[in-house]
Amino acid sequence: MGGVERIGVSLETKLLSAFDKLIAKQGYQSRSEAIRDLIRRQLSEQRLSNPDARAVAAVCIVYDHHATRMAEKLIDLQHSHILQVISSLHVHLDEHDCLEVIVLRGQVKQINKVGENILSMKGVKLGRINLVATEAILDT
Amino acid sequence: MGGVERIGVSLETKLLSAFDKLIAKQGYQSRSEAIRDLIRRQLSEQRLSNPDARAVAAVCIVYDHHATRMAEKLIDLQHSHILQVISSLHVHLDEHDCLEVIVLRGQVKQINKVGENILSMKGVKLGRINLVATEAILDT
Amino acid sequence: MGGVERIGVSLETKLLSAFDKLIAKQGYQSRSEAIRDLIRRQLSEQRLSNPDARAVAAVCIVYDHHATRMAEKLIDLQHSHILQVISSLHVHLDEHDCLEVIVLRGQVKQINKVGENILSMKGVKLGRINLVATEAILDT
Amino acid sequence: MGGVERIGVSLETKLLSAFDKLIAKQGYQSRSEAIRDLIRRQLSEQRLSNPDARAVAAVCIVYDHHATRMAEKLIDLQHSHILQVISSLHVHLDEHDCLEVIVLRGQVKQINKVGENILSMKGVKLGRINLVATEAILDT
Repeated sequence: MGGVERIGVSLETKLLSAFDKLIAKQGYQSRSEAIRDLIRRQLSEQRLSNPDARAVAAVCIVYDHHATRMAEKLIDLQHSHILQVISSLHVHLDEHDCLEVIVLRGQVKQINKVGENILSMKGVKLGRINLVATEAILDT
Repeated sequence: MGGVERIGVSLETKLLSAFDKLIAKQGYQSRSEAIRDLIRRQLSEQRLSNPDARAVAAVCIVYDHHATRMAEKLIDLQHSHILQVISSLHVHLDEHDCLEVIVLRGQVKQINKVGENILSMKGVKLGRINLVATEAILDT
Repeated sequence: MGGVERIGVSLETKLLSAFDKLIAKQGYQSRSEAIRDLIRRQLSEQRLSNPDARAVAAVCIVYDHHATRMAEKLIDLQHSHILQVISSLHVHLDEHDCLEVIVLRGQVKQINKVGENILSMKGVKLGRINLVATEAILDT
Repeated sequence: MGGVERIGVSLETKLLSAFDKLIAKQGYQSRSEAIRDLIRRQLSEQRLSNPDARAVAAVCIVYDHHATRMAEKLIDLQHSHILQVISSLHVHLDEHDCLEVIVLRGQVKQINKVGENILSMKGVKLGRINLVATEAILDT
Protein backbone atom coordinates (compact mmCIF):
# COMPACT_ATOMS: atom_id res chain seq x y z
CA MET A 1 0.00 0.00 0.00
CA GLY A 2 3.04 2.31 0.10
CA GLY A 3 3.26 2.77 -3.67
CA VAL A 4 2.48 5.65 -6.01
CA GLU A 5 0.14 5.40 -8.98
CA ARG A 6 -0.34 7.58 -12.02
CA ILE A 7 -3.84 8.20 -13.37
CA GLY A 8 -5.09 10.15 -16.37
CA VAL A 9 -7.59 12.98 -15.96
CA SER A 10 -9.35 14.64 -18.88
CA LEU A 11 -10.66 18.17 -18.53
CA GLU A 12 -11.63 21.15 -20.68
CA THR A 13 -8.72 23.32 -21.87
CA LYS A 14 -10.41 26.37 -20.36
CA LEU A 15 -10.82 24.74 -16.97
CA LEU A 16 -7.23 23.48 -16.98
CA SER A 17 -5.93 26.91 -17.84
CA ALA A 18 -7.89 28.56 -14.99
CA PHE A 19 -6.63 25.87 -12.59
CA ASP A 20 -3.03 26.35 -13.69
CA LYS A 21 -3.29 30.08 -13.02
CA LEU A 22 -4.79 29.54 -9.59
CA ILE A 23 -2.23 26.99 -8.39
CA ALA A 24 0.66 29.10 -9.68
CA LYS A 25 -0.66 31.98 -7.57
CA GLN A 26 -1.00 29.70 -4.56
CA GLY A 27 2.58 28.55 -4.97
CA TYR A 28 2.13 24.93 -6.07
CA GLN A 29 5.00 23.41 -8.00
CA SER A 30 3.00 20.70 -9.74
CA ARG A 31 -0.58 19.95 -10.73
CA SER A 32 -0.35 16.53 -9.05
CA GLU A 33 0.46 18.12 -5.71
CA ALA A 34 -2.46 20.56 -6.05
CA ILE A 35 -4.88 17.79 -7.01
CA ARG A 36 -3.68 15.55 -4.19
CA ASP A 37 -4.41 18.41 -1.77
CA LEU A 38 -7.95 18.81 -3.18
CA ILE A 39 -8.55 15.09 -2.75
CA ARG A 40 -7.18 15.02 0.81
CA ARG A 41 -9.34 18.00 1.75
CA GLN A 42 -12.43 16.30 0.33
CA LEU A 43 -11.69 13.06 2.20
CA SER A 44 -11.03 14.98 5.38
CA GLU A 45 -14.34 16.91 5.15
CA GLN A 46 -16.20 13.68 4.58
CA ARG A 47 -14.62 12.02 7.59
CA LEU A 48 -15.14 14.99 9.89
CA SER A 49 -18.88 14.95 9.19
CA ASN A 50 -19.01 11.70 11.17
CA PRO A 51 -19.34 12.48 14.92
CA ASP A 52 -17.56 9.23 15.79
CA ALA A 53 -14.49 9.78 13.58
CA ARG A 54 -11.16 10.43 15.26
CA ALA A 55 -9.58 13.82 14.63
CA VAL A 56 -7.24 16.49 15.90
CA ALA A 57 -8.45 20.03 16.50
CA ALA A 58 -6.90 23.41 17.10
CA VAL A 59 -9.26 25.38 19.30
CA CYS A 60 -8.35 29.05 18.90
CA ILE A 61 -9.59 31.49 21.51
CA VAL A 62 -9.08 35.16 22.24
CA TYR A 63 -9.43 36.05 25.90
CA ASP A 64 -8.76 38.91 28.24
CA HIS A 65 -5.95 37.89 30.58
CA HIS A 66 -7.27 40.35 33.18
CA ALA A 67 -10.34 38.13 33.52
CA THR A 68 -10.29 36.52 36.94
CA ARG A 69 -8.05 33.48 37.08
CA MET A 70 -8.54 32.86 33.38
CA ALA A 71 -5.18 31.16 32.81
CA GLU A 72 -5.69 28.90 35.82
CA LYS A 73 -9.22 27.97 34.77
CA LEU A 74 -7.99 27.12 31.28
CA ILE A 75 -5.26 24.90 32.69
CA ASP A 76 -7.76 23.21 35.03
CA LEU A 77 -10.10 22.57 32.14
CA GLN A 78 -7.29 21.16 30.04
CA HIS A 79 -6.22 18.78 32.77
CA SER A 80 -9.74 17.60 33.44
CA HIS A 81 -9.82 16.48 29.81
CA ILE A 82 -6.30 15.14 29.94
CA LEU A 83 -6.79 12.48 27.32
CA GLN A 84 -7.93 14.90 24.69
CA VAL A 85 -5.61 17.84 25.21
CA ILE A 86 -2.19 17.49 23.66
CA SER A 87 -0.60 20.88 23.81
CA SER A 88 -1.27 24.58 23.78
CA LEU A 89 0.27 27.79 22.45
CA HIS A 90 -0.11 31.22 24.02
CA VAL A 91 0.38 34.50 22.16
CA HIS A 92 0.15 38.01 23.62
CA LEU A 93 -1.91 40.15 21.26
CA ASP A 94 -2.00 43.46 23.13
CA GLU A 95 -2.17 44.77 26.69
CA HIS A 96 -5.54 43.05 27.21
CA ASP A 97 -5.90 40.12 24.91
CA CYS A 98 -4.24 36.76 24.43
CA LEU A 99 -4.64 34.22 21.67
CA GLU A 100 -4.49 30.64 22.88
CA VAL A 101 -4.40 27.66 20.58
CA ILE A 102 -5.31 24.42 22.34
CA VAL A 103 -4.70 21.19 20.44
CA LEU A 104 -7.22 18.46 21.20
CA ARG A 105 -7.38 14.88 20.02
CA GLY A 106 -10.26 12.44 20.12
CA GLN A 107 -13.57 11.70 18.47
CA VAL A 108 -15.21 14.58 16.63
CA LYS A 109 -18.08 14.66 19.13
CA GLN A 110 -15.75 14.63 22.14
CA ILE A 111 -13.64 17.41 20.68
CA ASN A 112 -16.74 19.50 20.02
CA LYS A 113 -17.94 18.96 23.58
CA VAL A 114 -14.63 20.01 25.15
CA GLY A 115 -14.26 22.83 22.60
CA GLU A 116 -17.69 24.23 23.48
CA ASN A 117 -16.81 24.13 27.16
CA ILE A 118 -13.75 26.23 26.42
CA LEU A 119 -15.57 28.69 24.15
CA SER A 120 -18.35 29.23 26.68
CA MET A 121 -15.98 30.23 29.51
CA LYS A 122 -16.49 33.73 30.88
CA GLY A 123 -13.61 35.86 29.63
CA VAL A 124 -13.29 34.04 26.32
CA LYS A 125 -14.31 36.67 23.77
CA LEU A 126 -14.04 34.82 20.52
CA GLY A 127 -13.20 31.31 19.54
CA ARG A 128 -13.43 28.58 16.99
CA ILE A 129 -12.98 24.83 16.89
CA ASN A 130 -10.90 23.90 13.84
CA LEU A 131 -11.00 20.21 13.12
CA VAL A 132 -8.16 18.71 11.11
CA ALA A 133 -8.15 15.10 10.01
CA THR A 134 -4.87 13.34 10.56
CA GLU A 135 -3.37 11.09 7.92
CA ALA A 136 -4.36 8.11 10.06
CA ILE A 137 -7.94 9.21 9.58
CA LEU A 138 -7.46 8.81 5.84
CA ASP A 139 -6.53 5.17 6.31
CA THR A 140 -9.21 2.85 5.14
CA MET B 1 -10.47 27.08 -26.17
CA GLY B 2 -13.27 24.53 -26.54
CA GLY B 3 -11.02 21.46 -26.45
CA VAL B 4 -10.39 18.79 -23.90
CA GLU B 5 -6.96 17.85 -22.56
CA ARG B 6 -5.66 14.83 -20.72
CA ILE B 7 -3.15 15.25 -17.91
CA GLY B 8 -1.36 12.73 -15.71
CA VAL B 9 -1.66 12.88 -11.92
CA SER B 10 0.48 10.79 -9.59
CA LEU B 11 -0.76 9.94 -6.13
CA GLU B 12 -0.21 7.43 -3.34
CA THR B 13 -2.01 4.09 -3.79
CA LYS B 14 -3.64 4.52 -0.38
CA LEU B 15 -4.95 7.99 -1.20
CA LEU B 16 -6.28 6.85 -4.56
CA SER B 17 -8.04 3.93 -2.99
CA ALA B 18 -9.74 6.14 -0.37
CA PHE B 19 -10.76 8.58 -3.12
CA ASP B 20 -12.19 5.79 -5.28
CA LYS B 21 -14.33 4.60 -2.38
CA LEU B 22 -15.60 8.09 -1.64
CA ILE B 23 -16.58 8.94 -5.21
CA ALA B 24 -18.28 5.57 -5.69
CA LYS B 25 -20.40 6.36 -2.62
CA GLN B 26 -21.18 9.82 -3.97
CA GLY B 27 -22.28 8.32 -7.27
CA TYR B 28 -19.52 9.51 -9.63
CA GLN B 29 -19.00 7.44 -12.75
CA SER B 30 -15.42 8.49 -13.40
CA ARG B 31 -12.44 9.89 -11.53
CA SER B 32 -12.06 12.64 -14.13
CA GLU B 33 -15.57 13.92 -13.43
CA ALA B 34 -14.95 13.90 -9.67
CA ILE B 35 -11.63 15.73 -10.05
CA ARG B 36 -13.14 18.29 -12.42
CA ASP B 37 -15.78 19.00 -9.78
CA LEU B 38 -13.10 19.50 -7.10
CA ILE B 39 -11.26 21.91 -9.38
CA ARG B 40 -14.41 23.88 -10.27
CA ARG B 41 -15.33 24.18 -6.61
CA GLN B 42 -11.85 25.47 -5.76
CA LEU B 43 -11.96 28.04 -8.57
CA SER B 44 -15.45 29.09 -7.55
CA GLU B 45 -14.45 29.60 -3.90
CA GLN B 46 -11.48 31.68 -4.99
CA ARG B 47 -13.62 33.89 -7.20
CA LEU B 48 -16.37 34.36 -4.64
CA SER B 49 -13.84 35.70 -2.14
CA ASN B 50 -13.56 38.78 -4.38
CA PRO B 51 -16.36 41.27 -3.52
CA ASP B 52 -16.34 42.60 -7.10
CA ALA B 53 -16.75 39.21 -8.84
CA ARG B 54 -20.02 38.47 -10.60
CA ALA B 55 -22.11 35.61 -9.21
CA VAL B 56 -25.54 34.10 -8.81
CA ALA B 57 -26.99 33.42 -5.39
CA ALA B 58 -29.87 31.45 -3.95
CA VAL B 59 -31.06 33.26 -0.86
CA CYS B 60 -33.05 30.76 1.21
CA ILE B 61 -35.35 32.07 3.90
CA VAL B 62 -37.88 30.58 6.25
CA TYR B 63 -40.64 32.99 7.24
CA ASP B 64 -44.01 32.97 8.95
CA HIS B 65 -46.66 33.79 6.37
CA HIS B 66 -48.89 35.11 9.14
CA ALA B 67 -46.38 37.95 9.60
CA THR B 68 -47.96 41.19 8.48
CA ARG B 69 -47.87 41.64 4.72
CA MET B 70 -44.72 39.51 4.47
CA ALA B 71 -45.37 38.26 0.92
CA GLU B 72 -46.07 41.79 -0.30
CA LYS B 73 -42.98 43.19 1.39
CA LEU B 74 -40.84 40.47 -0.16
CA ILE B 75 -42.24 41.22 -3.61
CA ASP B 76 -41.69 44.96 -3.10
CA LEU B 77 -38.11 44.34 -2.04
CA GLN B 78 -37.52 42.10 -5.04
CA HIS B 79 -38.84 44.69 -7.45
CA SER B 80 -36.83 47.49 -5.90
CA HIS B 81 -33.74 45.43 -6.74
CA ILE B 82 -35.11 44.42 -10.11
CA LEU B 83 -31.74 44.05 -11.78
CA GLN B 84 -30.48 41.55 -9.27
CA VAL B 85 -33.51 39.38 -8.70
CA ILE B 86 -34.13 36.75 -11.34
CA SER B 87 -36.72 34.41 -9.92
CA SER B 88 -38.11 32.93 -6.77
CA LEU B 89 -39.58 29.68 -5.50
CA HIS B 90 -42.09 29.34 -2.70
CA VAL B 91 -42.65 26.18 -0.66
CA HIS B 92 -45.22 25.66 2.12
CA LEU B 93 -43.50 23.93 5.02
CA ASP B 94 -46.33 23.73 7.56
CA GLU B 95 -49.31 25.76 8.73
CA HIS B 96 -47.02 28.64 9.77
CA ASP B 97 -43.85 28.56 7.81
CA CYS B 98 -42.80 29.01 4.19
CA LEU B 99 -39.46 28.43 2.54
CA GLU B 100 -38.66 30.95 -0.16
CA VAL B 101 -35.67 30.68 -2.45
CA ILE B 102 -34.83 33.98 -4.16
CA VAL B 103 -32.30 33.86 -6.98
CA LEU B 104 -30.15 36.98 -7.23
CA ARG B 105 -27.53 37.92 -9.78
CA GLY B 106 -24.86 40.60 -9.60
CA GLN B 107 -21.55 41.39 -7.94
CA VAL B 108 -20.79 39.46 -4.77
CA LYS B 109 -20.97 42.67 -2.71
CA GLN B 110 -24.33 43.70 -4.22
CA ILE B 111 -25.79 40.26 -3.66
CA ASN B 112 -24.65 40.30 -0.04
CA LYS B 113 -26.20 43.75 0.45
CA VAL B 114 -29.59 42.74 -0.99
CA GLY B 115 -29.41 39.37 0.75
CA GLU B 116 -28.80 41.00 4.13
CA ASN B 117 -31.78 43.29 3.56
CA ILE B 118 -33.94 40.23 2.99
CA LEU B 119 -32.57 38.30 5.97
CA SER B 120 -33.05 41.25 8.31
CA MET B 121 -36.77 41.65 7.51
CA LYS B 122 -39.11 41.22 10.46
CA GLY B 123 -40.87 37.87 10.01
CA VAL B 124 -37.87 36.17 8.38
CA LYS B 125 -36.85 33.57 10.97
CA LEU B 126 -33.86 31.94 9.33
CA GLY B 127 -31.94 32.53 6.17
CA ARG B 128 -28.74 32.09 4.28
CA ILE B 129 -27.11 33.61 1.22
CA ASN B 130 -25.69 30.82 -0.94
CA LEU B 131 -23.36 32.15 -3.59
CA VAL B 132 -22.79 30.01 -6.66
CA ALA B 133 -20.30 30.97 -9.32
CA THR B 134 -21.61 30.64 -12.85
CA GLU B 135 -19.51 29.01 -15.55
CA ALA B 136 -18.93 32.46 -17.02
CA ILE B 137 -17.15 33.31 -13.77
CA LEU B 138 -14.71 30.52 -14.50
CA ASP B 139 -13.77 32.15 -17.80
CA THR B 140 -10.39 33.76 -17.66
CA MET C 1 -45.70 28.21 24.79
CA GLY C 2 -46.95 30.88 22.35
CA GLY C 3 -45.94 33.85 24.49
CA VAL C 4 -43.18 36.42 24.27
CA GLU C 5 -40.68 37.13 27.03
CA ARG C 6 -38.36 40.02 27.70
CA ILE C 7 -34.88 39.36 29.06
CA GLY C 8 -32.07 41.71 30.03
CA VAL C 9 -28.64 41.44 28.43
CA SER C 10 -25.60 43.31 29.69
CA LEU C 11 -22.75 44.07 27.32
CA GLU C 12 -19.82 46.45 26.96
CA THR C 13 -20.68 49.89 25.53
CA LYS C 14 -18.06 49.39 22.81
CA LEU C 15 -19.47 46.03 21.75
CA LEU C 16 -23.04 47.37 21.73
CA SER C 17 -22.03 50.32 19.61
CA ALA C 18 -20.28 48.09 17.03
CA PHE C 19 -23.34 45.80 16.95
CA ASP C 20 -25.72 48.74 16.46
CA LYS C 21 -23.67 49.92 13.48
CA LEU C 22 -23.63 46.47 11.92
CA ILE C 23 -27.35 45.80 12.23
CA ALA C 24 -28.23 49.28 10.94
CA LYS C 25 -26.15 48.47 7.84
CA GLN C 26 -27.87 45.10 7.48
CA GLY C 27 -31.27 46.77 7.65
CA TYR C 28 -32.56 45.55 11.01
CA GLN C 29 -35.20 47.70 12.67
CA SER C 30 -34.62 46.51 16.20
CA ARG C 31 -31.89 44.92 18.29
CA SER C 32 -34.33 42.24 19.47
CA GLU C 33 -34.97 41.11 15.90
CA ALA C 34 -31.22 40.95 15.17
CA ILE C 35 -30.50 38.99 18.36
CA ARG C 36 -33.40 36.60 17.70
CA ASP C 37 -31.88 35.90 14.28
CA LEU C 38 -28.46 35.18 15.82
CA ILE C 39 -30.09 32.77 18.28
CA ARG C 40 -32.11 31.00 15.58
CA ARG C 41 -29.01 30.61 13.42
CA GLN C 42 -27.07 29.12 16.35
CA LEU C 43 -29.89 26.65 17.14
CA SER C 44 -30.18 25.73 13.50
CA GLU C 45 -26.44 25.06 13.14
CA GLN C 46 -26.52 22.90 16.24
CA ARG C 47 -29.41 20.82 14.93
CA LEU C 48 -27.99 20.42 11.45
CA SER C 49 -24.83 18.88 12.91
CA ASN C 50 -26.95 15.87 13.86
CA PRO C 51 -27.23 13.46 10.85
CA ASP C 52 -30.64 12.26 12.10
CA ALA C 53 -32.24 15.70 12.42
CA ARG C 54 -35.00 16.64 10.00
CA ALA C 55 -34.31 19.54 7.66
CA VAL C 56 -35.07 21.20 4.37
CA ALA C 57 -32.35 21.85 1.82
CA ALA C 58 -31.93 23.88 -1.32
CA VAL C 59 -29.53 22.04 -3.58
CA CYS C 60 -28.19 24.58 -6.08
CA ILE C 61 -26.53 23.27 -9.22
CA VAL C 62 -25.15 24.80 -12.39
CA TYR C 63 -25.31 22.47 -15.38
CA ASP C 64 -24.90 22.60 -19.12
CA HIS C 65 -28.29 21.97 -20.73
CA HIS C 66 -26.51 20.66 -23.82
CA ALA C 67 -25.35 17.70 -21.74
CA THR C 68 -27.10 14.58 -22.93
CA ARG C 69 -30.59 14.25 -21.51
CA MET C 70 -29.62 16.23 -18.44
CA ALA C 71 -33.09 17.63 -17.74
CA GLU C 72 -34.63 14.18 -18.07
CA LYS C 73 -32.04 12.59 -15.84
CA LEU C 74 -32.59 15.24 -13.19
CA ILE C 75 -36.35 14.66 -13.30
CA ASP C 76 -35.84 10.90 -13.06
CA LEU C 77 -33.57 11.33 -10.09
CA GLN C 78 -36.05 13.62 -8.39
CA HIS C 79 -38.89 11.18 -8.86
CA SER C 80 -36.85 8.26 -7.61
CA HIS C 81 -36.46 10.19 -4.35
CA ILE C 82 -40.05 11.35 -4.40
CA LEU C 83 -40.43 11.60 -0.66
CA GLN C 84 -37.54 13.98 -0.30
CA VAL C 85 -37.99 16.28 -3.28
CA ILE C 86 -40.57 19.01 -2.84
CA SER C 87 -40.07 21.38 -5.70
CA SER C 88 -37.52 22.85 -8.08
CA LEU C 89 -36.72 26.13 -9.79
CA HIS C 90 -34.95 26.48 -13.12
CA VAL C 91 -33.11 29.61 -14.27
CA HIS C 92 -31.40 30.16 -17.65
CA LEU C 93 -28.00 31.71 -16.99
CA ASP C 94 -26.61 31.97 -20.52
CA GLU C 95 -26.65 30.03 -23.78
CA HIS C 96 -25.00 27.03 -22.11
CA ASP C 97 -25.71 27.03 -18.44
CA CYS C 98 -28.74 26.64 -16.21
CA LEU C 99 -29.09 27.12 -12.49
CA GLU C 100 -31.44 24.66 -10.86
CA VAL C 101 -32.54 24.86 -7.25
CA ILE C 102 -33.97 21.59 -5.96
CA VAL C 103 -35.72 21.68 -2.60
CA LEU C 104 -35.34 18.49 -0.59
CA ARG C 105 -36.85 17.49 2.72
CA GLY C 106 -35.87 14.72 5.09
CA GLN C 107 -33.18 13.73 7.56
CA VAL C 108 -29.85 15.51 7.21
CA LYS C 109 -28.13 12.26 6.22
CA GLN C 110 -30.80 11.42 3.59
CA ILE C 111 -30.62 14.91 2.13
CA ASN C 112 -26.84 14.70 1.91
CA LYS C 113 -27.07 11.32 0.17
CA VAL C 114 -29.55 12.52 -2.46
CA GLY C 115 -27.71 15.83 -2.79
CA GLU C 116 -24.42 14.06 -3.46
CA ASN C 117 -26.10 11.93 -6.12
CA ILE C 118 -27.25 15.11 -7.85
CA LEU C 119 -23.89 16.88 -7.55
CA SER C 120 -22.01 13.88 -8.94
CA MET C 121 -24.08 13.68 -12.15
CA LYS C 122 -22.13 14.13 -15.34
CA GLY C 123 -22.99 17.56 -16.72
CA VAL C 124 -23.39 19.17 -13.29
CA LYS C 125 -20.52 21.65 -13.15
CA LEU C 126 -20.93 23.18 -9.75
CA GLY C 127 -23.24 22.62 -6.86
CA ARG C 128 -23.87 22.95 -3.19
CA ILE C 129 -26.22 21.46 -0.62
CA ASN C 130 -27.62 24.23 1.55
CA LEU C 131 -29.34 22.88 4.62
CA VAL C 132 -31.92 25.09 6.31
CA ALA C 133 -33.60 24.08 9.54
CA THR C 134 -37.33 24.61 9.57
CA GLU C 135 -39.08 26.19 12.54
CA ALA C 136 -40.39 22.76 13.45
CA ILE C 137 -36.77 21.77 13.93
CA LEU C 138 -36.46 24.46 16.56
CA ASP C 139 -39.31 22.89 18.56
CA THR C 140 -38.08 21.14 21.64
CA MET D 1 -16.18 53.66 26.24
CA GLY D 2 -15.15 51.24 29.00
CA GLY D 3 -18.66 50.93 30.48
CA VAL D 4 -21.25 48.20 30.44
CA GLU D 5 -24.86 48.69 29.33
CA ARG D 6 -27.99 46.65 29.87
CA ILE D 7 -30.50 46.26 27.05
CA GLY D 8 -33.86 44.49 26.85
CA VAL D 9 -34.49 41.77 24.29
CA SER D 10 -37.93 40.29 23.62
CA LEU D 11 -38.24 36.81 22.18
CA GLU D 12 -40.75 33.98 21.93
CA THR D 13 -40.98 31.71 24.98
CA LYS D 14 -40.30 28.69 22.77
CA LEU D 15 -37.18 30.22 21.25
CA LEU D 16 -35.87 31.31 24.65
CA SER D 17 -36.41 27.85 26.07
CA ALA D 18 -34.51 26.18 23.19
CA PHE D 19 -31.69 28.71 23.60
CA ASP D 20 -31.49 28.12 27.37
CA LYS D 21 -31.15 24.37 26.77
CA LEU D 22 -28.44 24.86 24.17
CA ILE D 23 -26.29 27.21 26.23
CA ALA D 24 -26.62 25.03 29.33
CA LYS D 25 -25.27 22.14 27.25
CA GLN D 26 -22.44 24.31 25.94
CA GLY D 27 -21.52 25.28 29.50
CA TYR D 28 -22.49 28.97 29.56
CA GLN D 29 -23.23 30.43 32.99
CA SER D 30 -25.39 33.31 31.80
CA ARG D 31 -27.52 34.28 28.80
CA SER D 32 -25.69 37.59 28.56
CA GLU D 33 -22.36 35.83 28.10
CA ALA D 34 -23.82 33.57 25.40
CA ILE D 35 -25.41 36.49 23.55
CA ARG D 36 -22.23 38.56 23.76
CA ASP D 37 -20.39 35.64 22.15
CA LEU D 38 -22.94 35.46 19.31
CA ILE D 39 -22.55 39.19 18.72
CA ARG D 40 -18.74 39.06 18.76
CA ARG D 41 -18.78 36.16 16.31
CA GLN D 42 -21.10 38.05 13.96
CA LEU D 43 -18.91 41.19 14.10
CA SER D 44 -15.81 39.09 13.56
CA GLU D 45 -17.25 37.35 10.49
CA GLN D 46 -18.27 40.70 9.04
CA ARG D 47 -14.79 42.15 9.53
CA LEU D 48 -13.00 39.13 8.17
CA SER D 49 -14.95 39.40 4.90
CA ASN D 50 -12.94 42.57 4.23
CA PRO D 51 -9.57 41.66 2.63
CA ASP D 52 -7.97 44.79 4.13
CA ALA D 53 -9.03 44.14 7.73
CA ARG D 54 -6.35 43.24 10.27
CA ALA D 55 -6.56 39.79 11.82
CA VAL D 56 -4.71 36.94 13.46
CA ALA D 57 -4.75 33.46 11.99
CA ALA D 58 -3.85 30.00 13.11
CA VAL D 59 -2.68 28.06 10.06
CA CYS D 60 -2.96 24.37 10.91
CA ILE D 61 -1.06 21.91 8.76
CA VAL D 62 -0.41 18.20 8.82
CA TYR D 63 2.86 17.20 7.19
CA ASP D 64 5.10 14.21 6.88
CA HIS D 65 8.33 14.98 8.75
CA HIS D 66 10.15 12.49 6.52
CA ALA D 67 9.57 14.87 3.61
CA THR D 68 12.86 16.36 2.53
CA ARG D 69 13.94 19.23 4.72
CA MET D 70 10.34 20.05 5.57
CA ALA D 71 11.06 21.57 8.99
CA GLU D 72 13.83 23.74 7.54
CA LYS D 73 11.68 24.89 4.66
CA LEU D 74 8.86 25.82 7.03
CA ILE D 75 11.25 27.83 9.19
CA ASP D 76 12.68 29.57 6.13
CA LEU D 77 9.20 30.44 4.93
CA GLN D 78 8.25 31.75 8.34
CA HIS D 79 11.29 33.98 8.54
CA SER D 80 10.79 35.34 5.04
CA HIS D 81 7.42 36.57 6.26
CA ILE D 82 8.82 37.69 9.57
CA LEU D 83 6.35 40.47 10.13
CA GLN D 84 3.37 38.20 9.85
CA VAL D 85 4.50 35.14 11.73
CA ILE D 86 4.26 35.38 15.49
CA SER D 87 4.75 31.90 16.79
CA SER D 88 4.29 28.24 16.04
CA LEU D 89 3.41 25.01 17.81
CA HIS D 90 4.55 21.55 16.77
CA VAL D 91 2.80 18.31 17.73
CA HIS D 92 3.90 14.75 16.87
CA LEU D 93 0.85 12.83 15.67
CA ASP D 94 2.39 9.47 14.80
CA GLU D 95 5.60 8.04 13.35
CA HIS D 96 5.04 9.92 10.09
CA ASP D 97 2.92 12.96 10.66
CA CYS D 98 3.21 16.23 12.52
CA LEU D 99 0.63 18.89 13.22
CA GLU D 100 2.00 22.39 13.09
CA VAL D 101 0.04 25.46 14.07
CA ILE D 102 1.57 28.68 12.74
CA VAL D 103 0.16 31.94 14.09
CA LEU D 104 0.17 34.77 11.57
CA ARG D 105 -0.80 38.40 11.98
CA GLY D 106 -1.57 40.99 9.34
CA GLN D 107 -4.21 41.99 6.84
CA VAL D 108 -6.68 39.27 5.82
CA LYS D 109 -5.32 39.28 2.27
CA GLN D 110 -1.67 39.05 3.41
CA ILE D 111 -2.49 36.22 5.79
CA ASN D 112 -4.29 34.32 3.03
CA LYS D 113 -1.32 34.81 0.70
CA VAL D 114 1.23 33.51 3.21
CA GLY D 115 -1.17 30.79 4.32
CA GLU D 116 -1.64 29.55 0.76
CA ASN D 117 2.14 29.46 0.31
CA ILE D 118 2.38 27.21 3.36
CA LEU D 119 -0.51 24.95 2.34
CA SER D 120 0.89 24.49 -1.16
CA MET D 121 4.29 23.24 0.03
CA LYS D 122 5.21 19.75 -1.07
CA GLY D 123 4.93 17.49 1.98
CA VAL D 124 2.03 19.41 3.51
CA LYS D 125 -0.84 16.93 3.32
CA LEU D 126 -3.69 18.87 4.80
CA GLY D 127 -4.15 22.38 6.05
CA ARG D 128 -6.47 25.18 6.84
CA ILE D 129 -6.22 28.91 7.44
CA ASN D 130 -8.30 29.83 10.48
CA LEU D 131 -8.80 33.56 10.75
CA VAL D 132 -9.64 34.97 14.17
CA ALA D 133 -10.47 38.61 14.67
CA THR D 134 -8.70 40.19 17.63
CA GLU D 135 -10.58 42.41 20.04
CA ALA D 136 -8.78 45.40 18.51
CA ILE D 137 -10.52 44.49 15.27
CA LEU D 138 -13.83 45.00 17.04
CA ASP D 139 -12.87 48.58 17.93
CA THR D 140 -14.72 51.10 15.86
